[in-house]
Amino acid sequence: MENYILRDENAIYYECGFSCDNVIFISLGSEKFFLTDPRYVLEAKEYAYNCTVVESRDLLQTAKVLLKDSKIKKLTFDPNDFTYFAYSELVQDLNIEFIQKANFSKLKRIIKNDDEIAILSKAAKLGREGFKALAKYIRKNAYNQKEQFLNFKAIEKMSQQGKYNLSFEPILAINENAAKPHALPTKKRLKLHDLLLVDAGIKYKRYCSDRTCTSYVDFENFNFKREQKFKNKKHQKIYDLVYKAQQTAIQNAKVGMKASKIDALARDIITQAGYGKYFVHSTGHGVGLDIHEFPMITSKSDTIIENNMVFTIEPGIYLPDEFGVRIEDTVAMIDGKAVIL
Amino acid sequence: MENYILRDENAIYYECGFSCDNVIFISLGSEKFFLTDPRYVLEAKEYAYNCTVVESRDLLQTAKVLLKDSKIKKLTFDPNDFTYFAYSELVQDLNIEFIQKANFSKLKRIIKNDDEIAILSKAAKLGREGFKALAKYIRKNAYNQKEQFLNFKAIEKMSQQGKYNLSFEPILAINENAAKPHALPTKKRLKLHDLLLVDAGIKYKRYCSDRTCTSYVDFENFNFKREQKFKNKKHQKIYDLVYKAQQTAIQNAKVGMKASKIDALARDIITQAGYGKYFVHSTGHGVGLDIHEFPMITSKSDTIIENNMVFTIEPGIYLPDEFGVRIEDTVAMIDGKAVIL
Repeated sequence: MENYILRDENAIYYECGFSCDNVIFISLGSEKFFLTDPRYVLEAKEYAYNCTVVESRDLLQTAKVLLKDSKIKKLTFDPNDFTYFAYSELVQDLNIEFIQKANFSKLKRIIKNDDEIAILSKAAKLGREGFKALAKYIRKNAYNQKEQFLNFKAIEKMSQQGKYNLSFEPILAINENAAKPHALPTKKRLKLHDLLLVDAGIKYKRYCSDRTCTSYVDFENFNFKREQKFKNKKHQKIYDLVYKAQQTAIQNAKVGMKASKIDALARDIITQAGYGKYFVHSTGHGVGLDIHEFPMITSKSDTIIENNMVFTIEPGIYLPDEFGVRIEDTVAMIDGKAVIL
Repeated sequence: MENYILRDENAIYYECGFSCDNVIFISLGSEKFFLTDPRYVLEAKEYAYNCTVVESRDLLQTAKVLLKDSKIKKLTFDPNDFTYFAYSELVQDLNIEFIQKANFSKLKRIIKNDDEIAILSKAAKLGREGFKALAKYIRKNAYNQKEQFLNFKAIEKMSQQGKYNLSFEPILAINENAAKPHALPTKKRLKLHDLLLVDAGIKYKRYCSDRTCTSYVDFENFNFKREQKFKNKKHQKIYDLVYKAQQTAIQNAKVGMKASKIDALARDIITQAGYGKYFVHSTGHGVGLDIHEFPMITSKSDTIIENNMVFTIEPGIYLPDEFGVRIEDTVAMIDGKAVIL
């Protein structure tokens, strides 16, 4: 294996089963080094496997000394993983060729092992429990509440009051606000017959869940199930269309396909119905330690889908100033087919 | 004014009163450009002043075209603000000299104007209200609760249930966990006579508050006031020492001093009492749009303190495996002296 250097917290966790917010990881053939400051040294020595923990108050300088002493000729790094400042410090006075490989750690992680699938499956289960708890809250208490407050309730219910970290800040948007794929919560209040979009996930053992539900709002039967009956006919029409696109992609995704084919499975249905220009993002993204990994499920991706890849399928239609619908599940490719986690 | 380019969200907000999570800002003499993607263009046109909003689906490429057409010879950038990837993309095929100036935006922001002081003062007030609400919760409900759960309650009370964003993830630590300056919340449960450290802040109009309280735990009179009576004599001794160090620094900080002198005001008291080696961080940091700005209040900082600088004063003593005490306020230099916000 080539020599490489990492700064990204999740990339390093993948290498040695431990990480923290101030670390440089260096792999030189079979020797691996975990450089961190005194705050994290004890835990690193306890939990980081297959590597030597090196205590340092200046990680870049310690890395330089280690690299210099190693006499290596070449070192791979991800140009997204280093600031220009860190890179400049590192290369200065070192007689080593630095080789850029964008996303080389994420590419290593594109196929999950069975343990990772089990953890991602558990994360998805905990995520669904969070959605259920939020739905229960909404049924009883959410009439006339602000998006900002409901967004906080999403954090509370998804995290089980702080027990789990979130995969990302939840998105919670009512009606026209749901027409923005990455809406920030506002003071808009939830009313009967509204459309509510919630995109949220939690982390279990550092692995992410990711799911989006779009629901009809009443305060007796509100739920995040896939079968939704809207009072507003246009809501229903667009919802049914997005749901059909999502189901078609899930049911027909097969190992051996290009990722772009899965994108097309969803996109073609929306395009044929005349809403193609309102499906403004790609169909999905890989999920793992990072919330956005490989494979990217885009119209241009030539990645061949393989067993044990894990990614989202999340078509959407966004009608500006009206409303938006997105339906998202995270799937794993198992025995050739997509299985919802 | 020289030409410069920015990517940092807060640095850009400071330039034009608006920002978002995908933007490049370019200043060419008196002409300023806000490059962003279609998601943010409408809001940018409404709220960003003194600049031309440019819509782009590839900000780096659009920036290159704009820079090429401008015929400028030199461009200042912050090497911490660009990844090596973004920098490499940007400079390629451009006949422009890129000049590194680390932290040039933060340095511009070191002296706050009166409007900023008023906003920071309001942020501090809202932060104190959050602490009060958390204290009330702890008095009534926190017996035997886990740090993880209480940390969530800190988020709930500080944010006023999602109304305000937080300056950073709160730190909430009991007894020996408080001996780690950046402790993560654990399953440890809160008991009578414990020592509880809480470090938290909120954002008001994007400006941060920052405050740390260390308190004696009972469930009748618990509070985050500065006068604390601990049952444990060593808790009390260390608390009194840290409090004396903090008060001495606040009362004696003067415009015209070096920042290192303010660090020494606090540090000398702790050192003279024999605990210098347990005060493992610097005395403070500037606060503004970023939670860590200039001036740095460190033993090595030659920055001369001026009116309208805003920074924390936060000495601490951390006794490994025993407990830690930190007491932090954010102060503004007004009429030559430090005023607690």
